[in-house]
Amino acid sequence: MLQKFLIPLFSLAIVGLHAQTSIIGFTPENAEKEIALEKEFESKLSAENLDAWMKRMAAEPHWVGTEYGRKNAEWMKNQFNSWGYDAKIETYHVLFPYPKTRVLELTAPTTYTAKLTPMAVEGDEYTAQGDALLPSYNAFSTDGDVEAELVFVNYGVPKDYEELDKLGIDVKGKIVIAKYYGSWRGIKPKLAAEKGAIGCIIYSDPKDDGYVKGDVYPKGPFKNKTGVQRGSVMDMPLYPGDVLTPGYPATKDAERLDREEAPTITKIPVLPISYEDAQPLLEALEGEVAPESWRGGLPITYHIGPGPAKVHLKLEFDWQLKPAHNVIATMKGTEFPDQWVLRGNHHDAWVHGASDPVSGMVALMEEARAIGELAKNGDKPRRTLVYAAWDAEEPGLIGSTEWVEDHIGVLQEKAIAYINTDGNGRGFLSAGGSHSLQAMVSEVAGAVTDPQREVSVKERKIASNLVDGGSKDFELYAVGSGSDYSPFIQHAGIASLNLGFGGENAGGEYHTIYDTYPNYKRFKDPDFAYGVALANVAGRISLRLANADVLPLEFGEWHNTVSGYLDEVIDETVTMRKAVEKHNQMVDKNAFELAADPKRPLVKPEKEKAVPYLDFAPVQNAMADLKTSIEKFNAADPSQLPPEKRQALNRQLMQVEQMLTSEKGLPRRPWYKHQIYAPGFYTGYGVKTLPGVREAIEQKSWKEAQEQIGVLAETLEGFDGHLQKMNAMF
Amino acid sequence: MLQKFLIPLFSLAIVGLHAQTSIIGFTPENAEKEIALEKEFESKLSAENLDAWMKRMAAEPHWVGTEYGRKNAEWMKNQFNSWGYDAKIETYHVLFPYPKTRVLELTAPTTYTAKLTPMAVEGDEYTAQGDALLPSYNAFSTDGDVEAELVFVNYGVPKDYEELDKLGIDVKGKIVIAKYYGSWRGIKPKLAAEKGAIGCIIYSDPKDDGYVKGDVYPKGPFKNKTGVQRGSVMDMPLYPGDVLTPGYPATKDAERLDREEAPTITKIPVLPISYEDAQPLLEALEGEVAPESWRGGLPITYHIGPGPAKVHLKLEFDWQLKPAHNVIATMKGTEFPDQWVLRGNHHDAWVHGASDPVSGMVALMEEARAIGELAKNGDKPRRTLVYAAWDAEEPGLIGSTEWVEDHIGVLQEKAIAYINTDGNGRGFLSAGGSHSLQAMVSEVAGAVTDPQREVSVKERKIASNLVDGGSKDFELYAVGSGSDYSPFIQHAGIASLNLGFGGENAGGEYHTIYDTYPNYKRFKDPDFAYGVALANVAGRISLRLANADVLPLEFGEWHNTVSGYLDEVIDETVTMRKAVEKHNQMVDKNAFELAADPKRPLVKPEKEKAVPYLDFAPVQNAMADLKTSIEKFNAADPSQLPPEKRQALNRQLMQVEQMLTSEKGLPRRPWYKHQIYAPGFYTGYGVKTLPGVREAIEQKSWKEAQEQIGVLAETLEGFDGHLQKMNAMF
Repeated sequence: MLQKFLIPLFSLAIVGLHAQTSIIGFTPENAEKEIALEKEFESKLSAENLDAWMKRMAAEPHWVGTEYGRKNAEWMKNQFNSWGYDAKIETYHVLFPYPKTRVLELTAPTTYTAKLTPMAVEGDEYTAQGDALLPSYNAFSTDGDVEAELVFVNYGVPKDYEELDKLGIDVKGKIVIAKYYGSWRGIKPKLAAEKGAIGCIIYSDPKDDGYVKGDVYPKGPFKNKTGVQRGSVMDMPLYPGDVLTPGYPATKDAERLDREEAPTITKIPVLPISYEDAQPLLEALEGEVAPESWRGGLPITYHIGPGPAKVHLKLEFDWQLKPAHNVIATMKGTEFPDQWVLRGNHHDAWVHGASDPVSGMVALMEEARAIGELAKNGDKPRRTLVYAAWDAEEPGLIGSTEWVEDHIGVLQEKAIAYINTDGNGRGFLSAGGSHSLQAMVSEVAGAVTDPQREVSVKERKIASNLVDGGSKDFELYAVGSGSDYSPFIQHAGIASLNLGFGGENAGGEYHTIYDTYPNYKRFKDPDFAYGVALANVAGRISLRLANADVLPLEFGEWHNTVSGYLDEVIDETVTMRKAVEKHNQMVDKNAFELAADPKRPLVKPEKEKAVPYLDFAPVQNAMADLKTSIEKFNAADPSQLPPEKRQALNRQLMQVEQMLTSEKGLPRRPWYKHQIYAPGFYTGYGVKTLPGVREAIEQKSWKEAQEQIGVLAETLEGFDGHLQKMNAMF
Repeated sequence: MLQKFLIPLFSLAIVGLHAQTSIIGFTPENAEKEIALEKEFESKLSAENLDAWMKRMAAEPHWVGTEYGRKNAEWMKNQFNSWGYDAKIETYHVLFPYPKTRVLELTAPTTYTAKLTPMAVEGDEYTAQGDALLPSYNAFSTDGDVEAELVFVNYGVPKDYEELDKLGIDVKGKIVIAKYYGSWRGIKPKLAAEKGAIGCIIYSDPKDDGYVKGDVYPKGPFKNKTGVQRGSVMDMPLYPGDVLTPGYPATKDAERLDREEAPTITKIPVLPISYEDAQPLLEALEGEVAPESWRGGLPITYHIGPGPAKVHLKLEFDWQLKPAHNVIATMKGTEFPDQWVLRGNHHDAWVHGASDPVSGMVALMEEARAIGELAKNGDKPRRTLVYAAWDAEEPGLIGSTEWVEDHIGVLQEKAIAYINTDGNGRGFLSAGGSHSLQAMVSEVAGAVTDPQREVSVKERKIASNLVDGGSKDFELYAVGSGSDYSPFIQHAGIASLNLGFGGENAGGEYHTIYDTYPNYKRFKDPDFAYGVALANVAGRISLRLANADVLPLEFGEWHNTVSGYLDEVIDETVTMRKAVEKHNQMVDKNAFELAADPKRPLVKPEKEKAVPYLDFAPVQNAMADLKTSIEKFNAADPSQLPPEKRQALNRQLMQVEQMLTSEKGLPRRPWYKHQIYAPGFYTGYGVKTLPGVREAIEQKSWKEAQEQIGVLAETLEGFDGHLQKMNAMF
């Protein structure tokens, strides 16, 4: 992205010469203080703490509702209190299924009973905890007992079903087997059910995170033949959080849906398995050989079926309300106690969760501890800091979602931003979120040194981009879903960030019994250097937000980015139009049939409806107006404002992200209010930017697309009005 | 390729309306006769003959020097004679190694002895012929007895060694193991030896033609775990044919090189193995995990090594002169007996060779038989037809090369064109060769009906192109090497074609004991419908060349095609220049190091020399002159010429392809004279167009590139002079 705007926000010294004393949102004088403070903060970070705390927190399995999870929460609360925070536990009562019955059998043409049991490995005592380990399953699968022919559906995403359609293969009344990856896992049973399948098996193919990628655990970090990825299949693109209390908090006495009507529980039973258990099933399939891109790394010919393989899948869950314990630790701001900087990471794991989430949790704690020390020495933040350790993230962002739903009023009034972390690795800074924060994050990334190379984490990230043929600039990615920022940004309209390091810590331990302390120490961030770097980056961001004279939001980069999304969406219609025209020409020429092998199945393609021209002008005009307003805003000098006007300006800045939401929310999923970022309805975690418009186009719902252009334009005009109001303050 | 020229050669009726009565090179009157003749020819083609003949010829192994090969040659000679041809056997005495000793052992860190033995399979008695089957080996591997650490080198092509360089891995003193595919096999030991390796193992990875592609033999057509591809590793890009008689015929008493100095025998021992035998070797490798694109389909993590796997490879061959029996069958032309249309296919196989070469051989024979019938009925060709069945193609195009070298004088005087076929399959017409023949071949392809779809083979081919995103026109591909056209076009400068059907007959039988009659009947062209179609296409081409009033060469499409090659070569320098500039900028920024994982090996890339600007003007001007001359030629009307002038023109047309050769040949390989097409020095079979210029650029030999531009320009100017001479005849 080319930077088309200057970023003068406040009268800054020239960055090149005085890089150390000019930061967005600070007067030169305060910038110097802030930089000194951050240096002090950095000096207090200790890798030893991260190591010791991980060992403690990941010593036993601690999914939501476990005794060890409760103990971790209590222990963290005490830690925060000892560091000078006002910490408490806020508990919600959320539906959580534990697997009672798991049966998967091949019943024809041969028989095989899936083992569904991981092996303990040498050198990792945690993997030998037997019954204490959570059995592998997909949370929020419905109960079920089904038997049917099997069909291999690749990753089980929309384009895979298009391929099956071409071959004339229908999954109606069948059980599908899909590979993990290619989308968020919950899409697979959702789509399978929409297509009429009655059961769904998900397995980890060795090509995706097993021996094809590298040596398997314990020799290397990748998935051995018994490893199974657990995970939620709740329909989070509809709404995350407790399935029985959509949009409101799951307090003890809350009114709850009947489980039978809970829309985010899957329609069909779904079970994850290992590649050892998948191989006999796949090997028993006949029919068409799977397309080349579908084939995995097992030593077999991948066939699609249906059948002759027939499988029996029986699942029963113990559906109980479990307590989800969020730890909330507050350090009141000295000047603006009613302006909150929120910072969170979840603490629940599927099993031990050394990497996910403990590696991120301990970085957050060390950050909080160091800031506590600064405070004890008299350097208290000007604004309030709120540190959170969320419970029940794994089953569906439940702890954070219930908390946001519980406190949405006060949050929309007082929150400045939410900074999220989750599992952390080694390598390159990955930062996503609200693009109004991009300029500030970029400055912080430029101030933190990479633990392995003698450059900033920003420079290293850019070098990595360059080598991969990517951007020359530091950019935030757009967030979809997959961690606790989702309720903050997408539901409450609070500017959010998601931070972590990675790229040099690949493995197959995710959500398996192998995500343990010894694994982390061997293959992830062995000396916790990147854990410290994460605390350093996130802590500096928190401190800048807490101490800035004017909140460090910048809209030039925001506008460049959103303009890019708009161009993409417009280009998409052009590409679609050309593709349909070409397809129809080919149909006219009968090219598909002539080119097809008569010995293989072919469903003759039909002509498609032409792609209409949409009127993007309302959004284009709103973006043009915004450009003018942003230029005007950037040209103004808030340092000239008297203190009370500056604070009024800050209060307006706190509202900006909410300007990007629409109360009606997205079509068919009103919980999602944000008009710039949302998880895809059919991608799950994968983001869709300008989601209302983009998804309507992708689904070829032209009327809805035009309507959503209107909604988006209205939203952007609202933001423009807000900016004009701010500009009028000068 | 857009057709920029009209094709008026001779006064043709409008093609759309009178498609049946206007063909290139014929007066309207003679065109009608020719079309009737071809119809008659087509009606005589019988699939039953192909079936019966394949069963006979592929009943036993028949590599060069075998008794069964000799019997096949004798039988074919008698067949040709019975059809009215004057057939004889021309025998050369060529070096051919038979494997005496084949030992391959893993000696560390565990031990394994390669089985090197294929299994007989149910339903295919031919695979149970035991000792009669030729052991798997690579012909023209040198003898050797080596032991060293093993290194996995992917396909063993130049870019793989670049990747190894980046990782700091050297193969000097090591034994390499390379996958089949990615290049012609002979490149692998050649390059390995250049890099200092002392031995080379080649194996068939299941990803390339085994279970990853589909079910394995006998369930399906792909390679089972014991299948091994035999094949020559002679350095054919230097020169093909007998290794001891470079450039001259291997007659009984010819002077021969000492075997020790024969430059086309490999420098290091090389052995092909099955994936069953490869797995223990690959599994024993440690070191870096192979890059993603290198990984095959075995259920292991692919490591590069070197070691700790150590292997012992011992190979000894029985080096003997063997008789190679070419069958040459001539039908004298009634009007122009000294103008020869040559048509050939090889008859030797590695084992039974049902597909390769017998499927093509029997199509050629049926074509010859049908033309013989026409002749018996009084429809003799105006020009002479020469049908050839080559021996010793498999070890290195030996039979055809020796014959061309033996008869080069008379061939360059009398040959009009050589039409080659080889193994044939099912699906789409694949036609390559001299682009002066493209317009004629396109007409013929439009006249032959596809056996499976009710359109011409041309229309079906174009439909396939369209679906694959390729050309909308019928185009000849440029020929490299890999079959018997090579000595004709590239050494003698005789216009050539290579024809076959394929695309719907994939399998892993190539050069294994599984290329048998039952395999062919199940998985290739079960009812020989495409064998008949091949006879139909090739026979019509032969007849048109034999009967045309003016030889059907067309230079407009030639010019378009060669202009495309020139654009490619020029673009290549631009692309290389930009890549070097970008690379050097990245080096300046230290981006490679910053982006690299410090825990993995990295050889820091150095700056590269800038790509100079070459002067392409000599070639561009020659092409411009040619365009003018070709337009003039196309505007002329040869039907107006008196008969003797027309024949003089034909004699000039026969010389055109020789105008595209240069007596000096290509740098470092003077046997290759053609300046437009050659096999790549480091690709083997893969073609390099404008080879002198292109390969110099690819090797960054800028001085040589500029010299070769001169050679190419001179050659093209010579062609232009020739055209001007022809134009002066009108």
